[in-house]
Amino acid sequence: MALERKLVLDDNDVYCPIRATLALLGQKWVPHIIHELMGGKRRFNELAHNIGGCNSRTLRDRLKNLESLDIVSRNIVATMPPWVEYDLTAKGRDLGVALASLERWGQAYMDEPCV
Amino acid sequence: MALERKLVLDDNDVYCPIRATLALLGQKWVPHIIHELMGGKRRFNELAHNIGGCNSRTLRDRLKNLESLDIVSRNIVATMPPWVEYDLTAKGRDLGVALASLERWGQAYMDEPCV
Repeated sequence: MALERKLVLDDNDVYCPIRATLALLGQKWVPHIIHELMGGKRRFNELAHNIGGCNSRTLRDRLKNLESLDIVSRNIVATMPPWVEYDLTAKGRDLGVALASLERWGQAYMDEPCV
Repeated sequence: MALERKLVLDDNDVYCPIRATLALLGQKWVPHIIHELMGGKRRFNELAHNIGGCNSRTLRDRLKNLESLDIVSRNIVATMPPWVEYDLTAKGRDLGVALASLERWGQAYMDEPCV
């Protein structure tokens, strides 16, 4: 799993689910992937195109990681030729809803650069 | 302002409000402070005590930063002796609501260490 230990442990080295959630969303492209999949199933190339800027290798790694966390599902569609579709699981969709409320907050209140 | 530039810019060096929001919440103790203030106004020592583990200097820095972002308000209560109370602004309370939905997700789904 690609969450850094130090990011998910609190000061007493106790695992913290909220730190883990923030660490996951802090990984580059993870919010983009979840946001994009909130719009529905996507093939790999569609995802890559719609997200833009994320190289294929990184995107593949992120999707694998999200799959291992049961946030994203990877389904092979048995057409000829077959293709692979990515979708959010119920868990992933719940995360997407929570993320959307953060997005709304960010857009409403952090719209001006504060650095 | 204490948000790192590289954390709030996207790949094209464009400021991204969602990355900025996640960077803010990724700062140690910021989620704790917001969570605690969702329970109501707190004096500095109450905050320090209830949060636990955060040293006074860090807590003071975080509060200053949150004040500069208009997320936390600092009010002097004119008693004798006077004291200082911290509270969430409307903007801070909105962030608290969004954070709470992430917290619920983390507790429901990331409760088992995945590292």
